[in-house]
Amino acid sequence: MLFEVFLSSPAVEAVFSPTAVVQAMMDVEAALARAQARAGLMPATAAQAIVSLCRAELYDVPALLAAAPRAGSLAMPVVQRLRETVALFDPSAAAYVHRSAAAQDIVDTAMVLCTREALRLIDDDLLTLCGHLLDLAERHEAVPMLGRTLMQPAQVISFRFKVMNWLMPLLRSAEMLRRQADAALMLQFGGPVGTLDSLGEHAEAVLEAMSQDLRLAVPDMCWHTQRDRGMRLAAEIGIMCGALGKLAQDVALMGQAEVEELSEPQADGRGVCITLPHKHNPVAAQQAMAAVQRVPQRIASMFSCMTPQHERGLGQIQAELAEWNGLLGNAHAAVQALAQSMAAPTVRPERMRAHVAARQGLVASEGLELLLLPRLGRQRTAAMLQDIIHRVRQGQGSMREMLVQSLDQGELPANAIAEGDLDALFDMDTSARLADQRVESLLQDARRRCDALASRPLG
Amino acid sequence: MLFEVFLSSPAVEAVFSPTAVVQAMMDVEAALARAQARAGLMPATAAQAIVSLCRAELYDVPALLAAAPRAGSLAMPVVQRLRETVALFDPSAAAYVHRSAAAQDIVDTAMVLCTREALRLIDDDLLTLCGHLLDLAERHEAVPMLGRTLMQPAQVISFRFKVMNWLMPLLRSAEMLRRQADAALMLQFGGPVGTLDSLGEHAEAVLEAMSQDLRLAVPDMCWHTQRDRGMRLAAEIGIMCGALGKLAQDVALMGQAEVEELSEPQADGRGVCITLPHKHNPVAAQQAMAAVQRVPQRIASMFSCMTPQHERGLGQIQAELAEWNGLLGNAHAAVQALAQSMAAPTVRPERMRAHVAARQGLVASEGLELLLLPRLGRQRTAAMLQDIIHRVRQGQGSMREMLVQSLDQGELPANAIAEGDLDALFDMDTSARLADQRVESLLQDARRRCDALASRPLG
Amino acid sequence: MLFEVFLSSPAVEAVFSPTAVVQAMMDVEAALARAQARAGLMPATAAQAIVSLCRAELYDVPALLAAAPRAGSLAMPVVQRLRETVALFDPSAAAYVHRSAAAQDIVDTAMVLCTREALRLIDDDLLTLCGHLLDLAERHEAVPMLGRTLMQPAQVISFRFKVMNWLMPLLRSAEMLRRQADAALMLQFGGPVGTLDSLGEHAEAVLEAMSQDLRLAVPDMCWHTQRDRGMRLAAEIGIMCGALGKLAQDVALMGQAEVEELSEPQADGRGVCITLPHKHNPVAAQQAMAAVQRVPQRIASMFSCMTPQHERGLGQIQAELAEWNGLLGNAHAAVQALAQSMAAPTVRPERMRAHVAARQGLVASEGLELLLLPRLGRQRTAAMLQDIIHRVRQGQGSMREMLVQSLDQGELPANAIAEGDLDALFDMDTSARLADQRVESLLQDARRRCDALASRPLG
Amino acid sequence: MLFEVFLSSPAVEAVFSPTAVVQAMMDVEAALARAQARAGLMPATAAQAIVSLCRAELYDVPALLAAAPRAGSLAMPVVQRLRETVALFDPSAAAYVHRSAAAQDIVDTAMVLCTREALRLIDDDLLTLCGHLLDLAERHEAVPMLGRTLMQPAQVISFRFKVMNWLMPLLRSAEMLRRQADAALMLQFGGPVGTLDSLGEHAEAVLEAMSQDLRLAVPDMCWHTQRDRGMRLAAEIGIMCGALGKLAQDVALMGQAEVEELSEPQADGRGVCITLPHKHNPVAAQQAMAAVQRVPQRIASMFSCMTPQHERGLGQIQAELAEWNGLLGNAHAAVQALAQSMAAPTVRPERMRAHVAARQGLVASEGLELLLLPRLGRQRTAAMLQDIIHRVRQGQGSMREMLVQSLDQGELPANAIAEGDLDALFDMDTSARLADQRVESLLQDARRRCDALASRPLG
Repeated sequence: MLFEVFLSSPAVEAVFSPTAVVQAMMDVEAALARAQARAGLMPATAAQAIVSLCRAELYDVPALLAAAPRAGSLAMPVVQRLRETVALFDPSAAAYVHRSAAAQDIVDTAMVLCTREALRLIDDDLLTLCGHLLDLAERHEAVPMLGRTLMQPAQVISFRFKVMNWLMPLLRSAEMLRRQADAALMLQFGGPVGTLDSLGEHAEAVLEAMSQDLRLAVPDMCWHTQRDRGMRLAAEIGIMCGALGKLAQDVALMGQAEVEELSEPQADGRGVCITLPHKHNPVAAQQAMAAVQRVPQRIASMFSCMTPQHERGLGQIQAELAEWNGLLGNAHAAVQALAQSMAAPTVRPERMRAHVAARQGLVASEGLELLLLPRLGRQRTAAMLQDIIHRVRQGQGSMREMLVQSLDQGELPANAIAEGDLDALFDMDTSARLADQRVESLLQDARRRCDALASRPLG
Repeated sequence: MLFEVFLSSPAVEAVFSPTAVVQAMMDVEAALARAQARAGLMPATAAQAIVSLCRAELYDVPALLAAAPRAGSLAMPVVQRLRETVALFDPSAAAYVHRSAAAQDIVDTAMVLCTREALRLIDDDLLTLCGHLLDLAERHEAVPMLGRTLMQPAQVISFRFKVMNWLMPLLRSAEMLRRQADAALMLQFGGPVGTLDSLGEHAEAVLEAMSQDLRLAVPDMCWHTQRDRGMRLAAEIGIMCGALGKLAQDVALMGQAEVEELSEPQADGRGVCITLPHKHNPVAAQQAMAAVQRVPQRIASMFSCMTPQHERGLGQIQAELAEWNGLLGNAHAAVQALAQSMAAPTVRPERMRAHVAARQGLVASEGLELLLLPRLGRQRTAAMLQDIIHRVRQGQGSMREMLVQSLDQGELPANAIAEGDLDALFDMDTSARLADQRVESLLQDARRRCDALASRPLG
Repeated sequence: MLFEVFLSSPAVEAVFSPTAVVQAMMDVEAALARAQARAGLMPATAAQAIVSLCRAELYDVPALLAAAPRAGSLAMPVVQRLRETVALFDPSAAAYVHRSAAAQDIVDTAMVLCTREALRLIDDDLLTLCGHLLDLAERHEAVPMLGRTLMQPAQVISFRFKVMNWLMPLLRSAEMLRRQADAALMLQFGGPVGTLDSLGEHAEAVLEAMSQDLRLAVPDMCWHTQRDRGMRLAAEIGIMCGALGKLAQDVALMGQAEVEELSEPQADGRGVCITLPHKHNPVAAQQAMAAVQRVPQRIASMFSCMTPQHERGLGQIQAELAEWNGLLGNAHAAVQALAQSMAAPTVRPERMRAHVAARQGLVASEGLELLLLPRLGRQRTAAMLQDIIHRVRQGQGSMREMLVQSLDQGELPANAIAEGDLDALFDMDTSARLADQRVESLLQDARRRCDALASRPLG
Repeated sequence: MLFEVFLSSPAVEAVFSPTAVVQAMMDVEAALARAQARAGLMPATAAQAIVSLCRAELYDVPALLAAAPRAGSLAMPVVQRLRETVALFDPSAAAYVHRSAAAQDIVDTAMVLCTREALRLIDDDLLTLCGHLLDLAERHEAVPMLGRTLMQPAQVISFRFKVMNWLMPLLRSAEMLRRQADAALMLQFGGPVGTLDSLGEHAEAVLEAMSQDLRLAVPDMCWHTQRDRGMRLAAEIGIMCGALGKLAQDVALMGQAEVEELSEPQADGRGVCITLPHKHNPVAAQQAMAAVQRVPQRIASMFSCMTPQHERGLGQIQAELAEWNGLLGNAHAAVQALAQSMAAPTVRPERMRAHVAARQGLVASEGLELLLLPRLGRQRTAAMLQDIIHRVRQGQGSMREMLVQSLDQGELPANAIAEGDLDALFDMDTSARLADQRVESLLQDARRRCDALASRPLG
């Protein structure tokens, strides 16, 4: 999966490396053995023998992988090799390996363990990114810039307001990721059809012991075919990726040569182009956008796996599992790239101001309309505005100049607009302060919530 | 959208009819006028004039629709016609129509109002369906049936256990739908770029008044480009649809002529085929499966709209909005169809028992293995089992008979299995009771949670 | 489906209006009756009676629609009402209505007929768009502009080159759409399970007669579950939408206020904003981007319906059918919007030149590197380039000026670059001419292919 | 990407192994050097030096991979290391490495080379599968079985007819895959913005030489942003996967214990379950279904990458590339699994007949209706049929017996049905022969087309 390396992160790749996943599966087998020994279902010595051999480094992991497709599940070769190895040391213990468990029990629980690790990585960088955005917002007070809608200049906002628009969905995602992780990261242990039939009365005790061992909650039923909690977690990751993609795209747009309001840092040769030495590419934005591009479809794939037949279906679980690490890797790559680029972006308030100024006051048209309406009525206001806008576009001067001209030439009643109103209307700083004001209390609230999240780890 | 009628419900179609949506938009315009009048931003008489004309039946709705694409938003023609109409009655009031609002403010808030209606319909049928499933589970005690994995017989479960497997994800969805609705159903009012620039100091007061009027919470920032809360709601609907699809598919599989464990009711000519009079088609399952088939992709489409450029993007909102009613319609069609078919399905416990019996005891192989292991060890157990299974498959008799034969012929030590163990091993009712036991407390818990949901309405 | 109006076209909506689809179904029933009469399977008078009543305007189409979901197919109520109506006029003929056909035969063939109409609309506007792009390319010779990669200035291209990059995929789509339409627009007639069992020896004759009547090819087998040819057509539409989305996005990027190289025409109040009178929104690009946004997911939904169970599946066909008109409507809306906006866009060559000039020669860095390499070797070249680029970025002057300075100061050997090479290197017109040259023969070829397509209608 | 191993094939994984892809990239660099030397753009000795070092085994491939994300493209570290290595042996040659090429030129062309290899693997197994299906169809003549629609028994078909329904879409895919491969497998070489600006007049010669070297066609323009031909190929793979999924699902349904009409071969321990020794799982169907599950979404992801900005976009190409090997791996895994299982499935004609017989003649209801209609008229026929069907369902006997009873009791006119008609009506072999007849000529045609495909290799 060569080309995934751009779209994933080395850390998440490590979490889901074959050896790490096999180790997680063996952790589950070990917990299973310990729990059954505690419940009196196997001799303590058997459990000890099993536990001592549940170490991935003892096995030929590539061989296990190669045997998996034929078997239909990675659990099969893992259990078989574990059993054979236990038999070498303690023949009587071999029979207790994987006792009463389904292959899917092992795989699902192992995936939960690995997912918890990956989520911690994502959570960590997400909080870092949120922190950087908060810093950016705090550092830039009342900086006016164009608010753009439908890719055209609309009105004046502030840079702080824009940053808060990026931040708030990410902050909510940080909070919701933890909530959905709490709900989804559960033990899976149900036996072949979910009833733990062969454990009889001992089922609860074994479940309880495994739960404590692996620090995973016991679900109310086994969830072989109840995938909803996992899907809520997946969807939340997808939602976070949407917010990351929005941020990355805005960064790329603001970094265009003709705009140049905010650019990625140029440290360490990042963004250098091999053929064109003059270029400085927004590679963090690129990586984030590339990483999140396929996330909606990944979610769709996972949702489409929610209809396994009967007690365990034909192929859905394999397809679902194969999306998890890709999804987590994409999410981490995106959040990590942006956490790095937002640590020290080049912000150019003077370019922001210049783009507002270049609009020649046109972006105050709503305000002007509201000023004129009470004096001129709807139709005269509309005509006057159209005329002024037309003249500005023809290059006759700024909106304010055209307005003053109209007042001078009596096209507008002398008292139509007070001088002070005019000043306020065309003062980009007034609009920027107002925009800042909208997010003032939110800024403090966001900082508090960020700190609260940072103070306790996920999962 | 002719062929959507199979996949949506008339009730949701009505909620999103052009007239209903235009009315919702006018409800927002009316609330906006009232709130601004209360804040002293327009004369009370102007607000009255506006409010009195915010009635969809006064307008040519198809003409509004026809004008929308050219304008780029349905809000444009709606506001224009409203303004023109107000001007006829109170010319000075016309200028106050839609004051300080963006087109998207009106459309988003109207969609929130309609979505609330649609969610109530879904919630209602979802609780009904949960109730029917609970009834089914309660009514059938310890009915043994095949648990099937990978579409092959695996072990004995109980029908109650199977029903609870269907129910639990749906019950969680009922609970989560309300939570996500609470979070997502908010007022949208931010003006062109989200800052409510032209309202200055009055912004909070107007927001507060509109919120009370429309019974919608005020968001911490306007969410023109912060679509995450809506996406959480959409994802939850998608998750519910996954659980509905699973139920529908199991019903279709159980209803196959060769299986016939559970069938849809045949009342009222449902399921009749026009060309083949002998057929009885599972049309509720069909409708549910067809309705949910595209839901994962709908979710993906909506997630892909999460990256609008800058303060409001180019086309994403139009694409997102167009999925909402389809998603809600699909969800309601599916839940409604299954709520009807699960009200009185034909359950055939005798067929369930017969399919278990036809397996000749093979489905007890795990239990038998666990019984033999302590006495025979791993390798002898495996060989014995393989031999017995082979003989059963060859038609020499049931697994129990083959086992007794082996005991008689001394292939097994006489004390290998106690008579009582044998009885328990091959007694399908024992397994069914055990499976029931797994969900005993959950059944009561689920009933309680269903009742709690039913006692208070959504939204 | 209110919000689809932005994303579809009135013409395609008309093609798939309930009345039009019911008429298409009745056209199929009429063709079926005629063909069976010709084969001696029903009296000519019966066929006449049926044919004369196969007129949608005689029926209550909304009532047919309302009855469809319960029946599981629109064909059921249509056939039933047709049969009842025939019975009123010729009781003995009623029995021959829909003889030997499956509901899906009627629905699929009717969809083929409607799809053919919709494809003609798309084809028509696609050829218009291709013509406009060819005109644009022909009209603008050797206009230099920035080639941009990763959203950063890269090198100089020509506007003609850029237009040809937009055109070629669209031209191929125009050609492929016809090919896939030829393959996919076939008669569907197989009876309940595809064998035409009840027609016995007459099957071929009836198929042949229907085929001539409806001008649709006879497939080698009925395609109830062989959906591949339809999916090739759907995919081709999706591919065209991808190319349209690319064009729309480039138009939106080029139309940004800070770039302003190409803008949509402003005629007829298109692009006007209700709240901000100064705005001119790129509404054609918006409509095209919104319309194609969901197309990849629509294709995915249709592909996911390719696995119906056995001879006809449970729900897949309903889900597939419901995507067709949406897909065709999206495609037509997008191609129509762009055909309109590309008829007379505002092209600003002076802005294109200005953006190149603003790069201060940096975009010639590859050329400069190739010039220096033979004289300086790799490492000195790299160092020299880095130094020059750095000084240009610091605002010390243009790349050419810095280069001359280096020559003057002896940092570069005097003979390193000939004066003529320097002129060529920094002459944007040279690059533009070269770029034009790349597409010179292609331009003529494309015109010829466009003309060939225009000379014969689709389907 | 651990869990992809179930869903891909080792052979395709090898084609896209890091070393293989790096080698393909180096093959492109070598071809580039040779072509430029031939065009006089670099000394022959420089080209020789470069070519001699374009061998992946000389490089630390994992290190190249690790460096790629930071650089934004795998081409960057590959070119850098190649250049450094060339510099060690022939310093003056180093400057000629990768001359005038864009990173994407190398990556795209390398992917084309690898894709050609992967397609040959798919093509090979697809032809094998088609051959097995043809063998199956030829071997089983006139075997009656239930045709099932909406998962319910409908009418009698033949096994041969069913097999041909599986085969025909696969055969078309085999043919179309080659056509789309021919169109899509092209050289990519355009330089930074597609104009080959720095090659000036030599561009055509270099393109031509590279084309011959790599045996890839020269495109009419570089296709950095014209991805349509690749998408047609991807879509065709997706369409093939749809047909494979349909086959796998039918196999799984037919293999259910209660149906048991066709089962996968049991050789070599395939399908064994580790916990339940009695199970025989349909692992080929499972693998195929799991492999194709995500393919529609993969296609959607790739289609969503069709809108790169300007001359090369920000992230789309990375995302697109990352889907290719997954798509090809899924496709090969699915076709390979089914080619193996269809080589020698267990077909049970006696079970097919038994399921028809168990329907008690009800599946002849359409035929009976057509027989009765001319004699009884529509309403009496309907009533009579309903009555008979009701009695059969109540267990009073078969449809034929009920019919004879009705004739005996005078409920039907004595001459209503001739004895011979009755025989034909309820003779499942008659229906099977008729179904066979439908595909008689097609069977020969398909064999001929299969042979034609097998006689010449792809690409």
